[in-house]
Amino acid sequence: MNKQTLIQAHNRIKPFIHKTPVLTSQLLDEKAGCNLYFKCENFQKMGAFKMRGAANAILSLSQEERKRGVVTHSSGNFAQAVSLAAKKLGVKAYIVMPENAPQVKKDGVRTYEGEIIECDSTPQAREATANSIKEEKGATFLHPSNQDEVIYGNSTAAIELLEEQPNLDLILTPVGGGGLIAGTALAAHYFSNNCKVIGGEPMEADDAYRSLISGKIETNESFHTVADGLRTHLGDRNFPIIQKYVDKIIRVEEDEIINAMQLIWERMKIIIEPSCAVPFAAVLKNKEEFKNKNIGIILSGGNVDVTNLPF
Amino acid sequence: MNKQTLIQAHNRIKPFIHKTPVLTSQLLDEKAGCNLYFKCENFQKMGAFKMRGAANAILSLSQEERKRGVVTHSSGNFAQAVSLAAKKLGVKAYIVMPENAPQVKKDGVRTYEGEIIECDSTPQAREATANSIKEEKGATFLHPSNQDEVIYGNSTAAIELLEEQPNLDLILTPVGGGGLIAGTALAAHYFSNNCKVIGGEPMEADDAYRSLISGKIETNESFHTVADGLRTHLGDRNFPIIQKYVDKIIRVEEDEIINAMQLIWERMKIIIEPSCAVPFAAVLKNKEEFKNKNIGIILSGGNVDVTNLPF
Repeated sequence: MNKQTLIQAHNRIKPFIHKTPVLTSQLLDEKAGCNLYFKCENFQKMGAFKMRGAANAILSLSQEERKRGVVTHSSGNFAQAVSLAAKKLGVKAYIVMPENAPQVKKDGVRTYEGEIIECDSTPQAREATANSIKEEKGATFLHPSNQDEVIYGNSTAAIELLEEQPNLDLILTPVGGGGLIAGTALAAHYFSNNCKVIGGEPMEADDAYRSLISGKIETNESFHTVADGLRTHLGDRNFPIIQKYVDKIIRVEEDEIINAMQLIWERMKIIIEPSCAVPFAAVLKNKEEFKNKNIGIILSGGNVDVTNLPF
Repeated sequence: MNKQTLIQAHNRIKPFIHKTPVLTSQLLDEKAGCNLYFKCENFQKMGAFKMRGAANAILSLSQEERKRGVVTHSSGNFAQAVSLAAKKLGVKAYIVMPENAPQVKKDGVRTYEGEIIECDSTPQAREATANSIKEEKGATFLHPSNQDEVIYGNSTAAIELLEEQPNLDLILTPVGGGGLIAGTALAAHYFSNNCKVIGGEPMEADDAYRSLISGKIETNESFHTVADGLRTHLGDRNFPIIQKYVDKIIRVEEDEIINAMQLIWERMKIIIEPSCAVPFAAVLKNKEEFKNKNIGIILSGGNVDVTNLPF
């Protein structure tokens, strides 16, 4: 892949995504001691950056593959993204979800006409069910974060941010499955002049932090974090990119995540999910390091149950 | 006053306000059966349209008057707006507040360096305290809604909306003290081609609805509404404008307000106060009447205690 790969991905998905706004806040800049540029993927179609990767993955399929449909296992934003992107392209989407997934997540997928296939709530059952649909329907499997086309699609949020703010010193993203930070790191490498990329991760799910130290993909034994989108680990497609192009990972505590989320809600009047607040929490935790810098933050999504908040 | 009065007000306040964005939502359009254009004054400085009226009122004072300061009684957004506008202009702001006002409101005023003068929690005490400051300090009294310069300042939100969307069939605003709808009605009269203006009001504080029927300013006996910004009544400066230029007032129930607020939060990922949801609730309640129309809605503010929500 090269710079052209990312440009092609961007051109391919443009008709299917919003060019989301970049917002600033004088009050938050004063609080953080730096200049913050928030790329608002919470305003993206279906409410998260995942739309970019899902759209690019489906658009990269042949006509023959599209006819047979796509399948993924996700109970989060990627399920909705695949459903919506597939719907727009007239492609059938099979979404494998644990039978105990929250009703609101199932409703989200059904809104976009994805077909839900329920399975037991274990990783093994999810994989087996997805595999059987692959075989039975000939559907193409799409991975939420560990697939090249998804990573290239995700890179386009940072490409747009850098187009608007070419002088960023660094960009921060949350780190969950690794698809967003890998795409962002590629974008910074090809489209900026030395802009660093840093990840934010909950202390309670710090697999990426440990992976960069050990040099192999680490996992989490438990996930006691409010940042529900980050309860996962890296994959073999995105980990080498992260090793090569990501500067470091900063870990934050649960109360720091909740505090950062509340600050963005109250001061910017926008709704972001807990996962999305992790990079801002990392900035607030390291004010000295980031002092007076121009910092881009990818606000990854805004799908949150507003009747059940952590504050 | 004439069209020029409003243009002058707009030019006067431009350096002190944000030109707020106009947002749309395909999902909400589908739900409502019309084309909605949301003017996002929740993103305005200090979080509400009140900044426009407060800035225009202070900028309209003579240098001599500015030296002696300004005084208002408000426990809501106008208190913060006066404090911030005064601070930016180097003018002293005295804010009369009931001693039992919520801490968060007092903190808001102090953030913008307004001086709080506490008084008993009765309308009489508020007025007496404000009067004594007027006499003692020579400060100019600013009314939150019933003052020409405030109304002209408020009109500029609709002027900007009509600049961006000249083909609106109607604009809806919430109705509290009457300052926003009066300004909006003047803007529609002078800057549109037949765009109607309609008010949204809680059934539980429907003084403006009754005032338009009786032909005199009615008040409310109680205020059992979640729309805390609308617990007040019209005044002698704005009522004649409303009588002349406002098409009608639509009343909505409490559950309709809360439902509309939650829909905007969940679908648009933006934070609005309950008062602000009343016009959208009025649209949802009258789908047939508004079918396929181009409708502007002034989202009046976003200052809400996110730890204490009605849903």
